[in-house]
Amino acid sequence: MGPGPINADPRVLRAMSAALVGQYDPVMTGYMTETQELYRRVFRTANDATLLVDGTARAGIEAAMVSLLKPGETVLVPIFGRFGHLLAEIGERVGARVVRLETEWGRVFDPAEIEAALDEHRPRMLAVVHGDTSTTLAQPLQDLGPMCRERDVLFYTDTTASLGGNVFDADGWMLDATTTGLQKCLAGPSGSSPITLSDRAARVIGARRSVEAGIAAEGDAVGAPDRIRSNYFDLAMILDYWGPRRLNHHTEATSMLYAARECARILVEEGVDAAVERHRLHGGAMAAGLAELGLELFGDQAHRMNNVIGVRIPDGVDGDAVRGELLMDYGIEIGTSFGPLNGVVWRVGVMGYNARRDTVLTTLAVLEQVLRRHGVRAGGGVDAALDSYAGAARDSEHASGDDGRGEGTPSELHAEPVT
Amino acid sequence: MGPGPINADPRVLRAMSAALVGQYDPVMTGYMTETQELYRRVFRTANDATLLVDGTARAGIEAAMVSLLKPGETVLVPIFGRFGHLLAEIGERVGARVVRLETEWGRVFDPAEIEAALDEHRPRMLAVVHGDTSTTLAQPLQDLGPMCRERDVLFYTDTTASLGGNVFDADGWMLDATTTGLQKCLAGPSGSSPITLSDRAARVIGARRSVEAGIAAEGDAVGAPDRIRSNYFDLAMILDYWGPRRLNHHTEATSMLYAARECARILVEEGVDAAVERHRLHGGAMAAGLAELGLELFGDQAHRMNNVIGVRIPDGVDGDAVRGELLMDYGIEIGTSFGPLNGVVWRVGVMGYNARRDTVLTTLAVLEQVLRRHGVRAGGGVDAALDSYAGAARDSEHASGDDGRGEGTPSELHAEPVT
Repeated sequence: MGPGPINADPRVLRAMSAALVGQYDPVMTGYMTETQELYRRVFRTANDATLLVDGTARAGIEAAMVSLLKPGETVLVPIFGRFGHLLAEIGERVGARVVRLETEWGRVFDPAEIEAALDEHRPRMLAVVHGDTSTTLAQPLQDLGPMCRERDVLFYTDTTASLGGNVFDADGWMLDATTTGLQKCLAGPSGSSPITLSDRAARVIGARRSVEAGIAAEGDAVGAPDRIRSNYFDLAMILDYWGPRRLNHHTEATSMLYAARECARILVEEGVDAAVERHRLHGGAMAAGLAELGLELFGDQAHRMNNVIGVRIPDGVDGDAVRGELLMDYGIEIGTSFGPLNGVVWRVGVMGYNARRDTVLTTLAVLEQVLRRHGVRAGGGVDAALDSYAGAARDSEHASGDDGRGEGTPSELHAEPVT
Repeated sequence: MGPGPINADPRVLRAMSAALVGQYDPVMTGYMTETQELYRRVFRTANDATLLVDGTARAGIEAAMVSLLKPGETVLVPIFGRFGHLLAEIGERVGARVVRLETEWGRVFDPAEIEAALDEHRPRMLAVVHGDTSTTLAQPLQDLGPMCRERDVLFYTDTTASLGGNVFDADGWMLDATTTGLQKCLAGPSGSSPITLSDRAARVIGARRSVEAGIAAEGDAVGAPDRIRSNYFDLAMILDYWGPRRLNHHTEATSMLYAARECARILVEEGVDAAVERHRLHGGAMAAGLAELGLELFGDQAHRMNNVIGVRIPDGVDGDAVRGELLMDYGIEIGTSFGPLNGVVWRVGVMGYNARRDTVLTTLAVLEQVLRRHGVRAGGGVDAALDSYAGAARDSEHASGDDGRGEGTPSELHAEPVT
């Protein structure tokens, strides 16, 4: 029940134990094509360039940034937590000029702040995380796409912490590049990074395309003028591998492809909307329970991700000792956070395979016991969560006939039980 | 039976279906420590800095080169096949000055040629693949270590194609950096890259150490003067994650760690020497059988890897049609090669879980049938392989009392059945 990685869906674990097949076996290339189509549905996109980067979530981030940004180009990075700092750092490492826009950890940006910075700095790219697990908040993205399109700025987001558990719409929000990982709401292990690129982004990358000397055929450009500063993360080469030419790059991580494919199959079978609603429901119940236990919810709750809840560690309580008891005595893991929030907040995840009623109620029951042993007069968490579930069931009955969500956006609705 | 990836050992597949644990769970950190110790035995090293890079084999290559080489430094790359070209290209991409030393595909370098180039170009690093699967040959490395040490040159090799199936000795050969992958003789899936660094190399990398802004504590250097040009491949950061400080970098790819750990456990249980001998035995039988079928063995057989055999595709035979029939009618995959050898040679792998008597004999029996249908009067391959096995058994009896290998090096011995 931490902020991720979480325990994977057993279907995903079983998928990884399937026998390997050769990388040009028709079964394998068929799986690759199927995986691309599945992730188009997960990202909500028609992008042809939808594929896996073989590495953990930050491998996808670096691949997107090093392939899209030439040295010296400007990238604007709004930072509202640890992972904004990561995007800025990766931008610097790939040789871009990085403009940071910072806000305190616990809030997100008003789109107008970002628009003003776009006008002031005229970047090539806007790079922003969607949900920053370090603070539990999600930056609203839907207004940023048109701003970027008007200014010919590439719009990139990382959705590792949010995808599958929060509303996301790559095409509707006009994203040029989106990256993610499996280990949060997608219910898989870390180690594969699904990514999607708009046609516009694919053209930018295609202009930097080169072919390795050891496999080049006549007419291939072995050294392009703006060659990408990484071979492993050269998305032009990786697109040649995933595309009809099937030009060898790395050897695809077959077992991780099986995992990524199964994660998306599970999500598409459930329905992406239904999965988001499930995260909203159980995340809301958890937040209600934690608040009732007397824990102060951290950050702007109107913009909290559905799938992770931050609470301030009560004064006088040893946060690591509580976490250690939860893990060693009950087998339940929760997290603290990074940087200014390290030792200040606990983060409780309700995501992927763990976004369930039994996990929420058990965690609250156990946490109450551990808090009491640490001198906190806690109680009522389970009851508050059960009330939250009952309220959601009533809302759902009343709302029958519409889409079941009422008029609010999910991010407004999910906060209701805790206000 | 291709040049890799090959089908994994079922134990490795089962290991990947184990439940995930949190990245700071004592079980997980215990597995990390155990995996480091196992790979010290596989690489034959006492290097403290022995760990996994989360990506395919070329992720390990890029991590080593980008972390060890500063922009503008010179790297000497002897090239005897596709993967030498890859090292050179990655060297260029990380900003190094690359000096290429090329030889025709099908031979390796005399150490004196490399020594002369070291003196002429005075590089910071010598980067050479151990076994280049594209040509099936292995470069002898044992003489190069002292040459590098005398000249204060960092000595790096990639052993993706060779480790576990050919004699290798990281410390005895004075290597500063060695990288590998799981998908060849280690009998696992692609997607994790074990790597080991000498103390000297670890110091070079440590001098470039920085800490991410989002997780820095007081006194941490957030931006080092020679900061490594990649975050994902920053081995200083990855060492902080694998070391006692356990400073968060990426989220370890847990299932791939389980796979890498199981690959090494299997190898260490068998004994690394015994595994090399097994590859020599079955590779030798396969080579004898292929030669008897009338196929010309490709390249300098005195320096062939134990685990992969190249043969020239007979004149007038459609190499891809033969490979297609083997795959679709018999479920047996073999490879062709890259660049100048694409469509010119077939490559037959005998490695990892596939280095067995039944796989060798079945492949030869089936290949004979397919060759005949393509008009090649082939025969006797199975008999030659059986003779090779019988000869090896007699040698083994005669040699009882010594180490069973006679006086020759494995690479000399393995060629015997085909001369």
